[in-house]
Amino acid sequence: MNWQSPIIQDLISRALIEDIGTGDITSEAIIPAERQAVARVWTKVDGIIAGLPVLELVYKQVDPTLQVELLVQDGYVATAGTTLARVSGPARSILMGERLALNFLQRLSGIATRTSRLTEPIKFYQSRIVDTRKTTPGLRLLEKYAVRVGGGFNHRFGLYDAVLIKDNHIAVAGGIKEAVAAVRRRVGHTVKIEVEVETLEQLQEALESRADIIMLDNMPVEMMKEAVKLAHGKAILEASGGITEENIVEVAKTGVDYISIGAITHSVTVLDISLDIEIEEVAED
Amino acid sequence: MNWQSPIIQDLISRALIEDIGTGDITSEAIIPAERQAVARVWTKVDGIIAGLPVLELVYKQVDPTLQVELLVQDGYVATAGTTLARVSGPARSILMGERLALNFLQRLSGIATRTSRLTEPIKFYQSRIVDTRKTTPGLRLLEKYAVRVGGGFNHRFGLYDAVLIKDNHIAVAGGIKEAVAAVRRRVGHTVKIEVEVETLEQLQEALESRADIIMLDNMPVEMMKEAVKLAHGKAILEASGGITEENIVEVAKTGVDYISIGAITHSVTVLDISLDIEIEEVAED
Amino acid sequence: MNWQSPIIQDLISRALIEDIGTGDITSEAIIPAERQAVARVWTKVDGIIAGLPVLELVYKQVDPTLQVELLVQDGYVATAGTTLARVSGPARSILMGERLALNFLQRLSGIATRTSRLTEPIKFYQSRIVDTRKTTPGLRLLEKYAVRVGGGFNHRFGLYDAVLIKDNHIAVAGGIKEAVAAVRRRVGHTVKIEVEVETLEQLQEALESRADIIMLDNMPVEMMKEAVKLAHGKAILEASGGITEENIVEVAKTGVDYISIGAITHSVTVLDISLDIEIEEVAED
Amino acid sequence: MNWQSPIIQDLISRALIEDIGTGDITSEAIIPAERQAVARVWTKVDGIIAGLPVLELVYKQVDPTLQVELLVQDGYVATAGTTLARVSGPARSILMGERLALNFLQRLSGIATRTSRLTEPIKFYQSRIVDTRKTTPGLRLLEKYAVRVGGGFNHRFGLYDAVLIKDNHIAVAGGIKEAVAAVRRRVGHTVKIEVEVETLEQLQEALESRADIIMLDNMPVEMMKEAVKLAHGKAILEASGGITEENIVEVAKTGVDYISIGAITHSVTVLDISLDIEIEEVAED
Amino acid sequence: MNWQSPIIQDLISRALIEDIGTGDITSEAIIPAERQAVARVWTKVDGIIAGLPVLELVYKQVDPTLQVELLVQDGYVATAGTTLARVSGPARSILMGERLALNFLQRLSGIATRTSRLTEPIKFYQSRIVDTRKTTPGLRLLEKYAVRVGGGFNHRFGLYDAVLIKDNHIAVAGGIKEAVAAVRRRVGHTVKIEVEVETLEQLQEALESRADIIMLDNMPVEMMKEAVKLAHGKAILEASGGITEENIVEVAKTGVDYISIGAITHSVTVLDISLDIEIEEVAED
Amino acid sequence: MNWQSPIIQDLISRALIEDIGTGDITSEAIIPAERQAVARVWTKVDGIIAGLPVLELVYKQVDPTLQVELLVQDGYVATAGTTLARVSGPARSILMGERLALNFLQRLSGIATRTSRLTEPIKFYQSRIVDTRKTTPGLRLLEKYAVRVGGGFNHRFGLYDAVLIKDNHIAVAGGIKEAVAAVRRRVGHTVKIEVEVETLEQLQEALESRADIIMLDNMPVEMMKEAVKLAHGKAILEASGGITEENIVEVAKTGVDYISIGAITHSVTVLDISLDIEIEEVAED
Repeated sequence: MNWQSPIIQDLISRALIEDIGTGDITSEAIIPAERQAVARVWTKVDGIIAGLPVLELVYKQVDPTLQVELLVQDGYVATAGTTLARVSGPARSILMGERLALNFLQRLSGIATRTSRLTEPIKFYQSRIVDTRKTTPGLRLLEKYAVRVGGGFNHRFGLYDAVLIKDNHIAVAGGIKEAVAAVRRRVGHTVKIEVEVETLEQLQEALESRADIIMLDNMPVEMMKEAVKLAHGKAILEASGGITEENIVEVAKTGVDYISIGAITHSVTVLDISLDIEIEEVAED
Repeated sequence: MNWQSPIIQDLISRALIEDIGTGDITSEAIIPAERQAVARVWTKVDGIIAGLPVLELVYKQVDPTLQVELLVQDGYVATAGTTLARVSGPARSILMGERLALNFLQRLSGIATRTSRLTEPIKFYQSRIVDTRKTTPGLRLLEKYAVRVGGGFNHRFGLYDAVLIKDNHIAVAGGIKEAVAAVRRRVGHTVKIEVEVETLEQLQEALESRADIIMLDNMPVEMMKEAVKLAHGKAILEASGGITEENIVEVAKTGVDYISIGAITHSVTVLDISLDIEIEEVAED
Repeated sequence: MNWQSPIIQDLISRALIEDIGTGDITSEAIIPAERQAVARVWTKVDGIIAGLPVLELVYKQVDPTLQVELLVQDGYVATAGTTLARVSGPARSILMGERLALNFLQRLSGIATRTSRLTEPIKFYQSRIVDTRKTTPGLRLLEKYAVRVGGGFNHRFGLYDAVLIKDNHIAVAGGIKEAVAAVRRRVGHTVKIEVEVETLEQLQEALESRADIIMLDNMPVEMMKEAVKLAHGKAILEASGGITEENIVEVAKTGVDYISIGAITHSVTVLDISLDIEIEEVAED
Repeated sequence: MNWQSPIIQDLISRALIEDIGTGDITSEAIIPAERQAVARVWTKVDGIIAGLPVLELVYKQVDPTLQVELLVQDGYVATAGTTLARVSGPARSILMGERLALNFLQRLSGIATRTSRLTEPIKFYQSRIVDTRKTTPGLRLLEKYAVRVGGGFNHRFGLYDAVLIKDNHIAVAGGIKEAVAAVRRRVGHTVKIEVEVETLEQLQEALESRADIIMLDNMPVEMMKEAVKLAHGKAILEASGGITEENIVEVAKTGVDYISIGAITHSVTVLDISLDIEIEEVAED
Repeated sequence: MNWQSPIIQDLISRALIEDIGTGDITSEAIIPAERQAVARVWTKVDGIIAGLPVLELVYKQVDPTLQVELLVQDGYVATAGTTLARVSGPARSILMGERLALNFLQRLSGIATRTSRLTEPIKFYQSRIVDTRKTTPGLRLLEKYAVRVGGGFNHRFGLYDAVLIKDNHIAVAGGIKEAVAAVRRRVGHTVKIEVEVETLEQLQEALESRADIIMLDNMPVEMMKEAVKLAHGKAILEASGGITEENIVEVAKTGVDYISIGAITHSVTVLDISLDIEIEEVAED
Repeated sequence: MNWQSPIIQDLISRALIEDIGTGDITSEAIIPAERQAVARVWTKVDGIIAGLPVLELVYKQVDPTLQVELLVQDGYVATAGTTLARVSGPARSILMGERLALNFLQRLSGIATRTSRLTEPIKFYQSRIVDTRKTTPGLRLLEKYAVRVGGGFNHRFGLYDAVLIKDNHIAVAGGIKEAVAAVRRRVGHTVKIEVEVETLEQLQEALESRADIIMLDNMPVEMMKEAVKLAHGKAILEASGGITEENIVEVAKTGVDYISIGAITHSVTVLDISLDIEIEEVAED
């Protein structure tokens, strides 16, 4: 992950404007500019931590003089009460960035934790969990990072970096083979082609068109098993649609290579993480 | 709500770049530019709809020639199967904007639906549900709108538009009265002052400092009742911390004016909404 | 004041592009890159200084290697000839940023000085001077800061952070009470409601609707006195319209809480501040 | 003037965000979205009008459905009471853009009016009034336009479009000739070279270096007359420093070609212009 | 190609600011705002036309009232003298946008023409021409489009949409297999993996690691032939380095699938295209 | 040259986003974050180097911890094999910025080299080479810098900083004198006026209108000689159109002051410059 990316810096900058706007009128009125403090960031519940570098970036943008010490790394399996980071410097700056830093950290940790709950039960199978494009507008880069932290893998990042031929495309093209052929006339050789199928007949057509990946859309588990046999060695198979913590082991057992789940990014429960300030003495000089 | 706001236009523009990037390589290869289509947006589950104007803005940015017809208005109590909108025009453009339009609509409807589940049980009490600053970075304006659609009210929009004196501020200032006095020396008369208290002694001090609003932080219900008696007519009371669908009626019964709940924006389950394309004939001319 | 705010950084960045554009062709041609200098910023006239941190931010953006030493703080009551700051480093950079740094400093000091001329004569009265939204487009945050430096207070920062119900709103709503009620159905409890009135009848209606603040718009002084009696303890009163250095004491004597004056930001005479360069020797090494 | 310039569109967009932010909470609560109105923009005092196209651009950004009818053109010599423009469409949108539209229009008209007060008394002399770089940060393009509307001319727009060699440059270069020579080695042939001089000896040196323009900095009127004789036909002369409405005729009489005055942009008194709304009936259909 | 992409709109907007800046002072002074004209865009030399939609977008940004009629489509094989487009509307606007519109059109047509000179001689072979990341900073999306117009194909768009393992990566990883394995642990299944090899031994290792694409870096033609035999059916082969119009047929004859050439974007000779204005009468009304 | 200019910083930032986008997936997967390296930037061919400060700026944006040591300065006449710079720090960051740094450096060095090939043969004549507005959209500031490095001079930077009256302007105005007069009524005294002429009659008219510069557009060499005689001392003459390395000496011999050539920026062959990485040991601590 490239934390110096202008995409992330810009996202944080806009989010800070959103929250602080014309100023933190409470802290500016009450807390003297020179007052120093140390804050402790800790988790109130068990979970997989993701987003600590974002917390650091937020604080560095709020005030470059702040010191941020990360005590664990992203991916850490934390138990309730664990201290994750310490932030020290002007008390005003710590308070000013607190909410945004936590909003990021809680959300990303929520995603990592949720993802790990899905990867854990299938760890002895070959299937891998992948995300979707059902991410929060503006946060995709970070949310896909959190999925990786939680043990998942990333599907394409957008409409631009891989081909995914869905039912609507097939209908317009007049068939899977025609659709794949049209794509081959347009996209470069560095791009993978995935086709979404709903039946074994479609699967057969997709295999014949030599698609790189075939998405089994909302297929019953029994049909998936058939699909795995048919596709064996000829294409990567991805199961998609209606997969939850309840049925994931069953799906993994079919032998599909990937299982994509939108809920790990679109319906997140945040991890409850807090920041406590311990006021220091004013520096004397 | 001002839908022409550059804040919203800019958010959508960035989110489109995030998703489409250098181009929708699938649709550009398969779907002829002149192919027209009509799409239907409908909900698969019951819920309160919020965000239809955002869907329209997304599509107008993707392609100004698209026609978007909203069949219901935000706030509509939809049952599974209801058609919410129709989008017609170039099929490519409809597919290109589909994911982002739905990502917004599903999330905002999820917030409205969750909020309404909390406002509904207390509708015969005077307490109002309010949100917090625990919103998704970058989406606060929209998420707070969705809270209103769901029957809730908005707490401050950021650190800039109201004063909220918390325990850390009180500690630095040396007491509630001192903190409020410091604020009064700095902020204008158009700004309300809220103080967070944890005990009845603090409440008493806050009342004496003539704070406009007093937040009862994680107070037991019995203590809240005492607080309501003490504060009667002297300040607005806001209950905060640990309030869920399970205990909200109990809290409302205490007579507090407002109940703030972070989860309505920070831990959202999206509403399952779909877009189906019905391909039209190519326009002849 | 949060000087690290991206709002201010961005304002300065744009203003630098406006002034420097594709380059300072004069200095780049004449002044060797390695030439060092020290410059002195001083005021040619008496006045209240405001904007020194902006001067520093401008210079830090022009060239992070410049050293800026502020010799007085904002709010300083300077007499003609006072040295306010020293800037040292590459001579080219000092000249490149000079005009913008002074344009800000002169204007903000002009506002602070003008404000203090209005606060001074009424300092033994309880009335406070407040500004308006009649600020220079793009500079509101800085201009409102300068008003505070000059001893004034800030009215709302924009249309978003407080309600101000004017005659047009009242006309549409069908009355003051109806207008206030409509607002109460929409805005959160952290927002204050101000109503503009022109007569004592309107004042009475505004008081009954329990507006937080009532603006007495262009009221004669005698009527203001009546208003103060009527409103006593029930609402904050703000006098507005046609108030100048000539009649401000008279207005303050009525007992109104606030006096708002647009001219302190919309019609400013800058404070005459200069920057003189003293060329140093080229660093030897 | 290129009113479609992205520089101006961007300036307006940022200023709208500054004023409206997350929304006009008053109008959104009180004024129904479908309510239509017509507003009249008129001047309360005599003056030269400048900035009507900006008013139109502001309103078109606030709401593209608004109709703006300009009744006079920029440069119009208005008497108190003149109606300048009509704006019709959604009442909410009219109120939302009112303050910013007027802030621009009042300021630019103030500049045009002030400029014309300086050009008027010298209209029978050949001297032309020019502005300086002492403009409001961010507004230079518009303020220089207003100077032209008022009958003045523009000095350079920034450090990039003309060379102006000042005392500091001369000191570093070791003389006027050396400075001019250095510039000629660097800048292209499309750029004019101006030199600032304080004495007749310097003037002589500047003439010998064949500078295109020579600025007479803070010269007494008698010395200016000498300068005009010396420079006759060899360079353009520009008087600068300490010139006001009181002494401008005397300066013009010396025969200098240009007179530059910072105050026409840095210390402006706005022209008092108002917008009145006349509420229409709600459109029936 | 998605011409409504904000990436392209933004690029044009910035380029217009670069060229027009504070205004086209020549045309604004000489050409009355109401003067209408029609301009003809034509090519002075033979070539493949690319970029006409960009010409239209430039003019629509300069002035939305302009009418742009494209007489041929991108990809048209034009002979000297062919009229490509007509632009009609305000003469000022046509002149203001002329240079930028042509700068784009000439450059993109230059790329398309150059590409077609390379694809033409190998059209009976299976090898396809692909571009590289050696594009002009900021113009990649357009330049890669022009390559496609000229009959070429696109390599990856950036570091983000495909894996390309080069010698430095191999050195750090300790071998091709280790490098490919590391990538497989990190990137999703939608991403293709390309490995750069210089010898047949490396090729063998790359084949064993099951890389999707293998780049033959600066390989002699004879070695390429061996490579084609070895890789047959197991991986896509891409020849790279030192390939020109002189030796391209020889390379194509080896049977490699793709030939990548940086020069088609990094060293372009523009196509000489002109715009002539035919002044119309001023519209009467 | 002002390398701290936000114009350049912004250009680099956008180009980095273009190339790196959501991340360098290859290097992030293979190269450990802590791996250090040193890279050598060297030229494979002879040429004039331009753009080394841009290489440094690119790398500082990619990763501020990188150390960039420039071994030669821009303008250096390099022979094949010369090492130009060393970059040291995290290996990942070096690879991530490599392509963009080289894309800039190769292109700018190509421009400088090409320019110097045109200035060299005429170095004993007074004519100077100047560029045009035929630059790559977005890169004008850098490309014009490279022209200077190569010994050329800059024509105007855009439509805003000098007047250039072309045939279309003359046609609308009704003659050269009318066009120049119109310009004089509008533009300030700091702006030079250039007129494009095609015949000696037009030249005569331009001289009489006292244009500062006269562009001889596509004039035969003999006519140019006549023009030089006619214009002697009255205006600067600039030859333009169809001038190449073949005929430039002949043109210079006519005695024109400037020769403008579009090809030095619009049709550039890049200089072949490479970056080689020498992997260091991982820092131990």
